[in-house]
Amino acid sequence: MEMHRVHFDIMVAELNRVLLETGFTTERAQRLARIFTETTRDGVYSHGVNRFPAFAGQARSGKGMDLHAEPEKASDFGVLEQWDGKLGPGILNACVCMDRAVEVARAHGMGCVSLRNTNHWMRAGTYGLRAADAGCIGICWTNTTQLIPPYGSADRKVGNNPLVFSIPRPEGRHFLLDMAMSQYSHGKLDVYRVANRRLPVPGGYDDSGNLSYDAGAIQAARRPLPIGYWKGIGLSMSLDLVASLLSGGRSTYQIAQEEAEYGVSQIFIAIHADAVAGDRMREIVDLTLADFHAAESLEGNEAVTYPGERMFRTREENLALGIPVEADRWQEILAL
Amino acid sequence: MEMHRVHFDIMVAELNRVLLETGFTTERAQRLARIFTETTRDGVYSHGVNRFPAFAGQARSGKGMDLHAEPEKASDFGVLEQWDGKLGPGILNACVCMDRAVEVARAHGMGCVSLRNTNHWMRAGTYGLRAADAGCIGICWTNTTQLIPPYGSADRKVGNNPLVFSIPRPEGRHFLLDMAMSQYSHGKLDVYRVANRRLPVPGGYDDSGNLSYDAGAIQAARRPLPIGYWKGIGLSMSLDLVASLLSGGRSTYQIAQEEAEYGVSQIFIAIHADAVAGDRMREIVDLTLADFHAAESLEGNEAVTYPGERMFRTREENLALGIPVEADRWQEILAL
Repeated sequence: MEMHRVHFDIMVAELNRVLLETGFTTERAQRLARIFTETTRDGVYSHGVNRFPAFAGQARSGKGMDLHAEPEKASDFGVLEQWDGKLGPGILNACVCMDRAVEVARAHGMGCVSLRNTNHWMRAGTYGLRAADAGCIGICWTNTTQLIPPYGSADRKVGNNPLVFSIPRPEGRHFLLDMAMSQYSHGKLDVYRVANRRLPVPGGYDDSGNLSYDAGAIQAARRPLPIGYWKGIGLSMSLDLVASLLSGGRSTYQIAQEEAEYGVSQIFIAIHADAVAGDRMREIVDLTLADFHAAESLEGNEAVTYPGERMFRTREENLALGIPVEADRWQEILAL
Repeated sequence: MEMHRVHFDIMVAELNRVLLETGFTTERAQRLARIFTETTRDGVYSHGVNRFPAFAGQARSGKGMDLHAEPEKASDFGVLEQWDGKLGPGILNACVCMDRAVEVARAHGMGCVSLRNTNHWMRAGTYGLRAADAGCIGICWTNTTQLIPPYGSADRKVGNNPLVFSIPRPEGRHFLLDMAMSQYSHGKLDVYRVANRRLPVPGGYDDSGNLSYDAGAIQAARRPLPIGYWKGIGLSMSLDLVASLLSGGRSTYQIAQEEAEYGVSQIFIAIHADAVAGDRMREIVDLTLADFHAAESLEGNEAVTYPGERMFRTREENLALGIPVEADRWQEILAL
């Protein structure tokens, strides 16, 4: 597949053009274009340029999304706030809510903003990085529609809810865990299926109910494996219930009553760690990560990396050389 | 193995006797005896009666544990509090800290208490149930010494940090996720090894580096599998870093510098969901759990259950009939 590299600023400008033509205001188009570009710059194509045409398409159709809606605080109690996303663009709603959680954390140590009636926030890690850039530990998650069957069943009942932990480090080299509940994302299964490659670890069940390393067979059976079998199911349910309870929004079960996924529920927690941790933060994190790196790799394995480490390397390379994009994908965007 | 049933009150009285003879004050002995008994009543033997003799032994030796130490607040900022456990008994320290988190949550929506220099808290779920009994969502975790190798390595670098989510429900039928980062606990691997039974899903690697269903081979290789392979490693690191940063306590790496595990770091978060969720709480949780139960079981599988559901059934049975205990274990305790 032909790839060529697009400079960060060129990508922002091009996505911005499409979003302006889609009907977003100048300010909103600029913010969205920047985040889609940053996501692509960090190597997360599935929520960057590869998703952008569908996002623009949904925005143009207006289905389940109000381009101009601003999230609004619905209620609060101390450091807990409940916001209504009014079906605005998920990225913009989520930025407002994580920024608000950071603001509450700076004043009171910790902030927890729950958000209902919002849309897909694209890359979950965006909001963890946002908290970390502001010097806070970030913890956030979203629910989704029903995508994963419980252990011992083939009925998809549970969401593939991404969970994020971020810890600030100097020069933007943040620790960033950004993980959904399935062992492999749908996009990752696509990559292995198209390349006809065996998955490194079991990724789900095939139609006969056997654990499988075959991405295509897992997608056909629609039985992706949650991390830790029953454990990932329990974690996914926990995230869903807390998000829907606190936000007063829809749970995974309720989201699944509609054909398309929209109106999801999210949680944004920021912790002003500096207020109690101070200089120890850098020291403890550095010590622990250095020791982790000292783990010897078994034959045939790459060096171990902590969450966020490879992303940062990709980012530096792409900022220097331009962001690699499939030529066809870029042509598709130019034609939007 | 011969089992007999011991009435809840008899078990509390007997453990209380041992703890008094160990040197605990009347009030502390009573609290500890009750929690060890409740843990056993709920079916968690590994942190109940099966662990009790070792706990009493450590308390008698005084190694790494100060029987009389009370945790003390070291610093705070808004709803974030940092406590020093002074190497007191882990159960008592953890109860004080979750109770304090609940108190802060009732006043300000959410409380986050971090605890350093504490000892093993036994059953993680105890503190989630405590928050739920007080009407709060509870989220808590602890770090441990180094127990799990990163993906692609055999060097144990990461803790098997248990993570808890609890959601209050009527009559104590709380939703309770209580999960460590390994697919199987050490105690569970013991059970399968002794019974010479194949694990239902891969539980780690054997000495040749192959994924294994053989509990004994996994224990011999000391390579338990984290949930989700690299994902569980990332989650475990996240929990460790947040706990050690906020508490100013030791990280997993630092704990592992000592031969025995003590002086661990913990996080207790309580969320006063009623303040924003109100009556919706019961409705959303009930709807979602009812739909989950509707998942059809595949042939040969039990009905799906939500986290905490089987525990509650075990509890009811054991309160009615007495708590089953191995006869030898009970004799051992009577002789302490």
